[in-house]
Amino acid sequence: MSREGLNRRSFLTGGAAAIGGAALALGGRAVWDEEPVPMPAPDAVGQATEEFRGIRQAGVSTRPQAFASFVALDLRSDVDHDALVRLMRIWTDDIERLSQGRAPLADTEPELGAVPARLTVTVGYGPAVFRAAGLERLAPAWLRPLPAFTVDRLEDRWNDGDVVLQVCADDETTVAHAVRLLVKDARTFVTVRWLQRGFRSTPGSTPPGTTMRNLMGQVDGTRNPDLGVEPELVWQPDGASDALAGSTSLVVRRIAMNLDTWDELDRDGREKAVGRRLDTGAPLTGRKEHDVPDLDAVDANGLTVIAPFAHVRRARDDEHPEQRFLRRGYNYDEAPAPGELSSSGLIFATYQADVDTQFVPIQRRLDELDLLNEWTTPIGSAVFFVPGGARAGEYLGQRLLES
Amino acid sequence: MSREGLNRRSFLTGGAAAIGGAALALGGRAVWDEEPVPMPAPDAVGQATEEFRGIRQAGVSTRPQAFASFVALDLRSDVDHDALVRLMRIWTDDIERLSQGRAPLADTEPELGAVPARLTVTVGYGPAVFRAAGLERLAPAWLRPLPAFTVDRLEDRWNDGDVVLQVCADDETTVAHAVRLLVKDARTFVTVRWLQRGFRSTPGSTPPGTTMRNLMGQVDGTRNPDLGVEPELVWQPDGASDALAGSTSLVVRRIAMNLDTWDELDRDGREKAVGRRLDTGAPLTGRKEHDVPDLDAVDANGLTVIAPFAHVRRARDDEHPEQRFLRRGYNYDEAPAPGELSSSGLIFATYQADVDTQFVPIQRRLDELDLLNEWTTPIGSAVFFVPGGARAGEYLGQRLLES
Ligand code: HEM
Ligand code: HEM
Repeated sequence: MSREGLNRRSFLTGGAAAIGGAALALGGRAVWDEEPVPMPAPDAVGQATEEFRGIRQAGVSTRPQAFASFVALDLRSDVDHDALVRLMRIWTDDIERLSQGRAPLADTEPELGAVPARLTVTVGYGPAVFRAAGLERLAPAWLRPLPAFTVDRLEDRWNDGDVVLQVCADDETTVAHAVRLLVKDARTFVTVRWLQRGFRSTPGSTPPGTTMRNLMGQVDGTRNPDLGVEPELVWQPDGASDALAGSTSLVVRRIAMNLDTWDELDRDGREKAVGRRLDTGAPLTGRKEHDVPDLDAVDANGLTVIAPFAHVRRARDDEHPEQRFLRRGYNYDEAPAPGELSSSGLIFATYQADVDTQFVPIQRRLDELDLLNEWTTPIGSAVFFVPGGARAGEYLGQRLLES
Repeated sequence: MSREGLNRRSFLTGGAAAIGGAALALGGRAVWDEEPVPMPAPDAVGQATEEFRGIRQAGVSTRPQAFASFVALDLRSDVDHDALVRLMRIWTDDIERLSQGRAPLADTEPELGAVPARLTVTVGYGPAVFRAAGLERLAPAWLRPLPAFTVDRLEDRWNDGDVVLQVCADDETTVAHAVRLLVKDARTFVTVRWLQRGFRSTPGSTPPGTTMRNLMGQVDGTRNPDLGVEPELVWQPDGASDALAGSTSLVVRRIAMNLDTWDELDRDGREKAVGRRLDTGAPLTGRKEHDVPDLDAVDANGLTVIAPFAHVRRARDDEHPEQRFLRRGYNYDEAPAPGELSSSGLIFATYQADVDTQFVPIQRRLDELDLLNEWTTPIGSAVFFVPGGARAGEYLGQRLLES
């Protein structure tokens, strides 16, 4: 089944809130022959679920949940093809149950498993999985660390990984519980390499459909491909080989923000650095967030309104429209290092069909010129293959592992 | 104004959700001559506010928000009475504005300040504030590190502090932004000593009024004093001296959970360790969560149903009913240390009028005997004086600092 549409329950929740808002604005009077306004249940956020089964994994085109933990794991040295199959069978069962709010049998805290809160768990593979499975011939060419960029200040503790779990839900207790359960059930196969926790706005904090803000205060995520129209930007076609059908790739870059120097810049400078306004997120050439940036517009001095160094100009190459991808990132905010005021940034996560032809050229353009580089520093980097989803009766990764 | 009641907006939000749930359960048909059902606005969670002004600070009897950051700060060596007054004036203005969703003038990310999400910031003082202000004579006798307990494995990085900010809101972006702004505006006065981030359920995840669950899976927070009935357990009376009126104390204990060994224990053993059921949170002698535990009830073998070592028996001394306090804790969940599966626990935060007569005796009882000690380890500890709130025209701490 397609993941493009929201499932009935999430729709009911989001939809009801929106309708409710409208009703309130209009005075909220219920008239006798009107349809009753659907009301969200008091635990609608916690009880909403996302579909698990399908040729594509959930958690990619799924409307981003409020919380995400990205967990990179390393395979123990004795893990071979059979062990991988066992691991994927265990996880498939765990993930299916947790995502439907039915605690797995091995769940020692089943009450924490009863709040699905739109849980999705997306599993990705590093090169080591293909090696361990004896399937190197099937590993995509792009499945390796990204090339070095001059802006990078990578710290090994945030790099790479043999397996990744992207665990997202609208409740942080749900995420914490799912991560522990999945790691525990996998402990004879893997060890934790790194874990990154991120957040966006709480449901009901901003109206449904509002684009998130990052900790620089920017509206972040406005121009993202519509996968209903251009699924091929992210997904390998359903008709591809078993190893590829419904698969994609995940790039996770941990990008630190230098908020101290950013805060010294005036508002005008900050808007020019991105090419968009801070209040509405509108391009400097438009009025509304979703107005299309006019990269050719010039000001009275004949200079382009959106500067040559502006992030939105550099982050896109209109001559190569295939160089696009889905951004699905999360804010992070950790305890500051000694002497620092804060430690904030973005867990910049993208999905694309091909890392080398879509992601790398854009990251290279930004490395060459992007004023935002003055205040942002990539400190971690990892690339994963995301196998197709588990259809009824399948385990995650089955079509690849049995190719 | 009293903080006991919820403010109108929070009430509307929580209340509407509850009413909506009921309507849905009944089929949701609106009848023509009924009152229209109030509907939550789509951004009701984000726009809800808590009152800032009052003789008591907010964030204590405030219905716990979903997220909390506890930030301990150390005074720079040159901070004296005048500097403290300046700092408190700055913070008072910042906190008042942020809590009402009006970004402070110095806010460089004002859009992030526009989502109050029931923000409260509660300020507390360690002994160093009294010293720096030349007010040692006013420092309560209990304002010092807790006595050593045999269960303690304290790590200095989580201990003590000259000043504390407890920053709570229903949106994590709101918390992150408020913490940064408050620390930044105070940087000439203080440095960050430690920061602890915690969470509970997201609004709408469980029905309003549901008690939180901790990461051991237990219902946690059932028996807490009703401050409407017994305000003196937490608050110094409004009629006390200027230095004390409306003040209280905050104890923050970081308590690590050993979930690996906890998970090895069977359900029966886990329920006996606490004296309550895991599913409902009901005492082992009752059926419903809020049934009063019967500590005298015996089973067929003549043994007390709630064991001598059970946490709920030991955590309470009915012969000394004054030994009670308000528990207002949060879950924490961090990246696991190398070789570990998880790093979870409780930011165990309590408010009481007097630490020595209310908190210490209970902690001592638990230190002597409490089966839960097998799986929990205090790794951080701090005690703060929480001055009265700022009434109209006052700054936070004014009545103390001008005593
Ligand atoms: C902390 C680092 C970054 C920040 C704060 C940031 C912020 C932003 C903002 C505010 C926008 C405009 C709104 C939008 O369309 O979402 C944007 C757009 C975009 N960013 Fe970034 N960005 C960061 C890093 C990156 C990186 C590393 C890449 C690619 C490798 C990237 C690719 C893009 C793309 C493709 C767009 C859309 C451009 C368009 O089509 O108009 N960004 N970013
Ligand atoms: C990680 C450590 C701890 C855990 C997991 C924990 C868990 C619980 C649970 C599940 C309950 C029963 C439900 C309730 O009434 O809230 C409870 C009750 C209680 N706990 Fe704890 N607790 C911990 C540490 C402490 C500490 C350190 C203290 C005091 C210093 C304490 C004091 C209390 C009190 C006073 C009660 C209420 C007892 C009653 O009146 O029935 N707890 N705790």
